[in-house]
Amino acid sequence: MSTESEPPKVQEEVDSSSQSISKKAAKKEAAKKAKEERRKEAEAAASAASALSIEEEGPLANNYGDVPLQELQSVNDPQTGKWSEAVNGREWTVVGALNGSLKDQEVLIRGRVHTTRPVGNKLAFVVVRERVSTVQCLATVKPDSVSKEMVRFVRSLSNESIVDVIGVVSVPDVEIKGATQQVEVQIKKLYCVSRAAKTPITIEDASRSEAEIEKASKEGVQLPRVNQDTRLNNRVIDIRTLANQGIFRIQSQVGNIFRQFLLSENFVEIHTPKLIAGSSEGGSAVFRLDYKGQSACLAQSPQLHKQMSICGDFGRVFETGPVFRAEDSYTHRHLCEFTGLDVEMEIKKHYSEVMDIVDRLFVTIFDGLNNVCKKELEAVAKQYPFEPLKYKPKTLRLTFEEGVQMLKDAGVEIDPLGDLNTESERKLGQLVLEK
Amino acid sequence: MSTESEPPKVQEEVDSSSQSISKKAAKKEAAKKAKEERRKEAEAAASAASALSIEEEGPLANNYGDVPLQELQSVNDPQTGKWSEAVNGREWTVVGALNGSLKDQEVLIRGRVHTTRPVGNKLAFVVVRERVSTVQCLATVKPDSVSKEMVRFVRSLSNESIVDVIGVVSVPDVEIKGATQQVEVQIKKLYCVSRAAKTPITIEDASRSEAEIEKASKEGVQLPRVNQDTRLNNRVIDIRTLANQGIFRIQSQVGNIFRQFLLSENFVEIHTPKLIAGSSEGGSAVFRLDYKGQSACLAQSPQLHKQMSICGDFGRVFETGPVFRAEDSYTHRHLCEFTGLDVEMEIKKHYSEVMDIVDRLFVTIFDGLNNVCKKELEAVAKQYPFEPLKYKPKTLRLTFEEGVQMLKDAGVEIDPLGDLNTESERKLGQLVLEK
Repeated sequence: MSTESEPPKVQEEVDSSSQSISKKAAKKEAAKKAKEERRKEAEAAASAASALSIEEEGPLANNYGDVPLQELQSVNDPQTGKWSEAVNGREWTVVGALNGSLKDQEVLIRGRVHTTRPVGNKLAFVVVRERVSTVQCLATVKPDSVSKEMVRFVRSLSNESIVDVIGVVSVPDVEIKGATQQVEVQIKKLYCVSRAAKTPITIEDASRSEAEIEKASKEGVQLPRVNQDTRLNNRVIDIRTLANQGIFRIQSQVGNIFRQFLLSENFVEIHTPKLIAGSSEGGSAVFRLDYKGQSACLAQSPQLHKQMSICGDFGRVFETGPVFRAEDSYTHRHLCEFTGLDVEMEIKKHYSEVMDIVDRLFVTIFDGLNNVCKKELEAVAKQYPFEPLKYKPKTLRLTFEEGVQMLKDAGVEIDPLGDLNTESERKLGQLVLEK
Repeated sequence: MSTESEPPKVQEEVDSSSQSISKKAAKKEAAKKAKEERRKEAEAAASAASALSIEEEGPLANNYGDVPLQELQSVNDPQTGKWSEAVNGREWTVVGALNGSLKDQEVLIRGRVHTTRPVGNKLAFVVVRERVSTVQCLATVKPDSVSKEMVRFVRSLSNESIVDVIGVVSVPDVEIKGATQQVEVQIKKLYCVSRAAKTPITIEDASRSEAEIEKASKEGVQLPRVNQDTRLNNRVIDIRTLANQGIFRIQSQVGNIFRQFLLSENFVEIHTPKLIAGSSEGGSAVFRLDYKGQSACLAQSPQLHKQMSICGDFGRVFETGPVFRAEDSYTHRHLCEFTGLDVEMEIKKHYSEVMDIVDRLFVTIFDGLNNVCKKELEAVAKQYPFEPLKYKPKTLRLTFEEGVQMLKDAGVEIDPLGDLNTESERKLGQLVLEK
């Protein structure tokens, strides 16, 4: 393709232009170069792989290989290549659904190469990962399906490459430690749909818990620790860890259960304006912007519009949406932008009606998560251990007075008429838990 | 309370201050005065009413009246007043649930006084409205429950006041035209929980369709038409119309069905940042703001973060959230801020997989609305008539070429390689409908 010895085209254009553009262009150029390098790296990896795959001729050569882009683009025609032919008419089984009930059945799965492990030149393990699930697959030389060259191909797969695996489900006698699914897939065919270049961090490293690192350290082994800044600089790779996959799926379910519960209680979901003319509460810490010549600011809360909805006879409303606070953050509870779950309702007789709703809402969310996010909670706990949440089907209610008294009895000095600070709140939570 | 002859306190403070504050203060003062006037008006109405209700002594006097604020605040004690005693231990039935199956049963309902209509001095009708439902209630003088004074009290209720009605459900032989529910409530007790001051627009006026106004006009009657600006200046009252109640409830359900369908197809709901460093698409029409000394802008689309999610192995994601476009609007399709329903998914083989999802998504939404929002759709159609949506369970798919050909056959000249403009799109839709 285009060579590095040619003078870069963008640079030429820039020379005849202003300085400020030149700076931008230089940046652009650098980005272009980096992109080009990545592309070349990927190409090199791909051609190395295809060099491997064309070593062999004969029927077994059809059972593996890189899928050319051209073949991926003409998928409705099974005649175009060995991958098209192999997957034609088949459905993909999700990795998370692989279990003993599928024993001896042939399945097609798609996922990322999580890790590969060769054992001699006749056997290779590859762990395939999809969302919060991983499964161990193995390629063993077999006269009718798997050649030595195919095992070599499997060993050559770079981590994070996307593969299609066709194989038979088997159930080993011993527990499988390196994967979430307690079955194995005996590979019959394996195609690499997209070969990954080397990633700046590996999912294995990014998935490690502090405890694992410390344990290894005591045994004299220094395992890599992926720090926050590296994670954020490589967000797209970091969110592939099982823990992050779990966190986002749990977040999605929190929103879902929140809404389902409220809708079942005759709430209406509203979407209130985020661009408003005044400030929604207080007024100091707002983000201000120019709205076509007028001053506007970002909503700190849907408060005003929620209340308008109630005055407008909606009865019960809720909103899930972004909230903007231009506050300097001194605690880890502060964020300039967060997703607010917000509720407003009319009361028939007493404010305890709101407490009833909130009480049942939280219990429903906790029950729901334990029910539908079991695997996700486990994935998070594996990397970031936490105690399971304890809660009652009917939440304990304390008056402020009773709470203050409990704190006093435990020796905590607080103002009986003031707000509870974070520390006192925590302490009170602990006291209630101990009861 | 404070009298008008006293010099206003705020004004005094202002005199000793700067000009710019004085302007603000004058505004504040005007707002204060207006508020004060509204308060007085409400007080006058309330005292006029309570003057009515105390005319009578004896057991029947307990069956109606204004509920004092003090009584509303001590609702867990049934001893505090006649309303507390009357509603104690009862549940409210929603107006929308009133139907023939409740014949002869005594119910408690709460709603707004939509209209009142006296018939002589022994009978009064009051239509009570809750959300998208209205029911006709009637107070007839009866020796054991309804006094003449009570009928007078019912007649005196101002529109939009909130009332609690206890009465017996009856089913009249003829159709009830002035209300959505085809039953009547024979009033036994009626309490005014909150008496409304005169509203700047009436719900009756704001609910009228263009057709009704024109029909009356032909008959020589000039009915009030509430214009857009008046509606927007009195938004809280305007959204009480059955049509607006319907629109917001339909909107809520669109979001709900959208999410339920996608979750059932293994999509994950995400919440992407709205404050971003660069522009998400193109780059001209963004709202820029100062983010603690750095330049930031409001997201024009969740595009980048949706794609990051896919690269990050989420597989299928969606978002419902605000989208900001600082574009000048030339068509009625433009809004600077709108709620986007956004979807992104990986494909296994072919882009037709996305078409399959979108196809089933829309059909599910249409089916769902027809199913759960029947009453809401009727409420909207009554004020803003529309043709029922025609759609097929499996959407027709045309190639671009076929579409262009259909337009050509119908005599529309268009560029076979260009985009379809709005007009051509409409025409094509019509051609497909006619087929």
